[in-house]
Amino acid sequence: MLHYLSLKDIDSLPNWVEEARSLKTNPKHHKGLGKDKTLGLLFFNNSLRTRLSTQKAAMNLGMEVIVMNFGSEGWALEYGDGTIMDQGSSEHVKEAAQVISQYCDIIGIRAFASLTNKEEDEAELVLESFKKYATVPILNMESSVGHPLQALADAITLVENNTKPKPKVVLSWAPHPRALPHAVANSFVEMMQRQDADFVITHPKGYELSENITKGCTIEYDQEKALENADFVYVKNWSNYTNYGQVINKDTNWTITLKKLGQAKFMHCLPVRRNVVVADEVLDSSQSLVIEQANNRTYAAQIALKKILESLS
Amino acid sequence: MLHYLSLKDIDSLPNWVEEARSLKTNPKHHKGLGKDKTLGLLFFNNSLRTRLSTQKAAMNLGMEVIVMNFGSEGWALEYGDGTIMDQGSSEHVKEAAQVISQYCDIIGIRAFASLTNKEEDEAELVLESFKKYATVPILNMESSVGHPLQALADAITLVENNTKPKPKVVLSWAPHPRALPHAVANSFVEMMQRQDADFVITHPKGYELSENITKGCTIEYDQEKALENADFVYVKNWSNYTNYGQVINKDTNWTITLKKLGQAKFMHCLPVRRNVVVADEVLDSSQSLVIEQANNRTYAAQIALKKILESLS
Amino acid sequence: MLHYLSLKDIDSLPNWVEEARSLKTNPKHHKGLGKDKTLGLLFFNNSLRTRLSTQKAAMNLGMEVIVMNFGSEGWALEYGDGTIMDQGSSEHVKEAAQVISQYCDIIGIRAFASLTNKEEDEAELVLESFKKYATVPILNMESSVGHPLQALADAITLVENNTKPKPKVVLSWAPHPRALPHAVANSFVEMMQRQDADFVITHPKGYELSENITKGCTIEYDQEKALENADFVYVKNWSNYTNYGQVINKDTNWTITLKKLGQAKFMHCLPVRRNVVVADEVLDSSQSLVIEQANNRTYAAQIALKKILESLS
Repeated sequence: MLHYLSLKDIDSLPNWVEEARSLKTNPKHHKGLGKDKTLGLLFFNNSLRTRLSTQKAAMNLGMEVIVMNFGSEGWALEYGDGTIMDQGSSEHVKEAAQVISQYCDIIGIRAFASLTNKEEDEAELVLESFKKYATVPILNMESSVGHPLQALADAITLVENNTKPKPKVVLSWAPHPRALPHAVANSFVEMMQRQDADFVITHPKGYELSENITKGCTIEYDQEKALENADFVYVKNWSNYTNYGQVINKDTNWTITLKKLGQAKFMHCLPVRRNVVVADEVLDSSQSLVIEQANNRTYAAQIALKKILESLS
Repeated sequence: MLHYLSLKDIDSLPNWVEEARSLKTNPKHHKGLGKDKTLGLLFFNNSLRTRLSTQKAAMNLGMEVIVMNFGSEGWALEYGDGTIMDQGSSEHVKEAAQVISQYCDIIGIRAFASLTNKEEDEAELVLESFKKYATVPILNMESSVGHPLQALADAITLVENNTKPKPKVVLSWAPHPRALPHAVANSFVEMMQRQDADFVITHPKGYELSENITKGCTIEYDQEKALENADFVYVKNWSNYTNYGQVINKDTNWTITLKKLGQAKFMHCLPVRRNVVVADEVLDSSQSLVIEQANNRTYAAQIALKKILESLS
Repeated sequence: MLHYLSLKDIDSLPNWVEEARSLKTNPKHHKGLGKDKTLGLLFFNNSLRTRLSTQKAAMNLGMEVIVMNFGSEGWALEYGDGTIMDQGSSEHVKEAAQVISQYCDIIGIRAFASLTNKEEDEAELVLESFKKYATVPILNMESSVGHPLQALADAITLVENNTKPKPKVVLSWAPHPRALPHAVANSFVEMMQRQDADFVITHPKGYELSENITKGCTIEYDQEKALENADFVYVKNWSNYTNYGQVINKDTNWTITLKKLGQAKFMHCLPVRRNVVVADEVLDSSQSLVIEQANNRTYAAQIALKKILESLS
């Protein structure tokens, strides 16, 4: 039984990308595979792309989909072991995960980082608790630590647009008014570590991501230098990791402009704040791949669901 | 590629009504037409009839439906050009509309008038922005200015119940405790301008709808006089248009009673406030067509979706 | 036309249980029965098990499902007769029920007790109003007075796990920090009155359920004595019925432990507060049937929907 919790669950990234591209040319080809199978999507946080593309992917595979906004429609969950549940939480994840496993053949979960409890976030409290107690496969629709469906879509997009044997890919931090999680950046780094590329991470000093994630990566604090001769520039804000969840820097000198981008292709997971993270001129140019990245979310979800379904039979 | 944004998008109202009535006799007849097509319904506002009837219509056509409460489930959208998005909005409609177009074959949108910004409302900011940036057809599920699915259902209901070559149809304002949009009244007027009928609008002085809409229509400020010998009385509250969005008048003398109605049939789009807009005795009488109007919402949506689907192939 | 509003709507409980168990062995066997039929699920309250299992059951029968969170997505409903609706309610149940009946072949409704207005709760205001004005069958997904889908799932679970001709079944009250409705306890009692069992109810003095429900049942105020030699212990909190909706007692001496349970099987409808209602050691033991009870919710809903569908043809 295959879970898709992180990129580590992919046996061969090139093969998954290849097969996803094949699904893209004929999305309904495996419509029989999901027949009489139910995908339950549990949202603990808001979602646009993940919500729609994962439903679309499941329907392409002939699955039935049940969507639930867990926070507003269900019961507040308890995760602690041995808790005397006389406070806010009405149901323990032990019961919830086992119960939902009886109604759904696969459970997708979106549960963002709290950005207040680093230890719980790093432990993937929600995702790992569901994995532990569920009896069916779990699909990560963005957890506190990673967003592997996004990274898989990014991998597809890179392959579709790359023309070089070893392209230069830069992950650049950009400013943002609110505290954002590290999940997208983490999974992008993990994905790049599986690519044959010249990969550079750039961000202001003090904005280092977890060393567990970036181990072995080149970090260049000078954005201009980092961007030199880049083929792909992946831009993303994240809040401070050391001063966990704080917004310490909003320096608009880090905003991506056409001049900074040079000849590179621009990538972002969306939603993106125009003229804060990146200038209009970039998003509205032909160098932007953001819409195609979003399109590839469908095929990322579809290949992940297909692999999981195949692991069930 | 056909959009259904307003009644102007209908090539022939009599033909659409005729075909809708035919769908009504055999709702599943075209179940193959929507096969492997996805309808995305984006709700920026509450909905009962539109929510259920549009889903029902799509399922009658064999479509898959994804429903999203955009406000609570997605990201706050920015519509301005060149905005530095460092405030509340997380995503620009430019991205959202393009992205959703990749997951859905048709996008339905419900976005009520703000009733605070007349210029934006009149410009159909949300609907027109989606139309501009989406790459698939847009279905208007009530916008700031119009509710063409309701007007189409009303046209079906009129044809089903009319017995005269040229019936007298009256649109009467009625009181309401809250500020309501002009959309339903606007679209009803636009629909009536395409009918062979003696059409009269009645409302208190100062409650004139937009002249762009009512151009050429008879306006009679004396409700009693307006209702004389009416065959159909369509009742609807709207907030003041000149003092935009204000509730200036709650005069219960405008409430519709059986005595005022005479022999006419009563119509209303629902939801309706009993004994404020209209007396119980009217709604509970056989002269009320409101339930059948609601029923015809399914076939109005179905003919609109059918026409759009046909325009795609 | 069959409604499923309470256990009284079951012609033969043993037959329904038998047929539900047969559905459980082959859930998709009747997938043709619900073809082109739409189930509308209206939630006035939160739900996990009911939400998912009823959707699952409907899909097993080949139905299309429309889910609506009535409170947040629709209009506030008025139930009073002759009300001048100039306050908070936008739509009367008279219209809502008739209208939804045109879009859905069966309407499921979840509307909890208010716990503030005993008279309205006892009269099943929401459920009975929908039944009165709808023109299609109503499925009770937990009303103010009963939760017959839960009781039906419990009946299935009892049959599956019972080994004696006349088992001893105990319904025990347990403490809870919040005011909970009586619906689950009521329906369990009603179900037990249709079983060949030695049935005992135990709760603190003053926590009597409605006499209309418990008429003829053995009530034992000494929990220890009640639990002696029990085969099944069904645990549930309910708020005070006499001092309607009050939480008068939170006595943790009533919490169920392994010692108290003895050799009995443990049952609970979920969600359950661990170490308040029942100790971890019970839920985590093989004596707990709660996960299987939740599983049987699917087949309870499926047999109810099947019976209703058959009544329509």
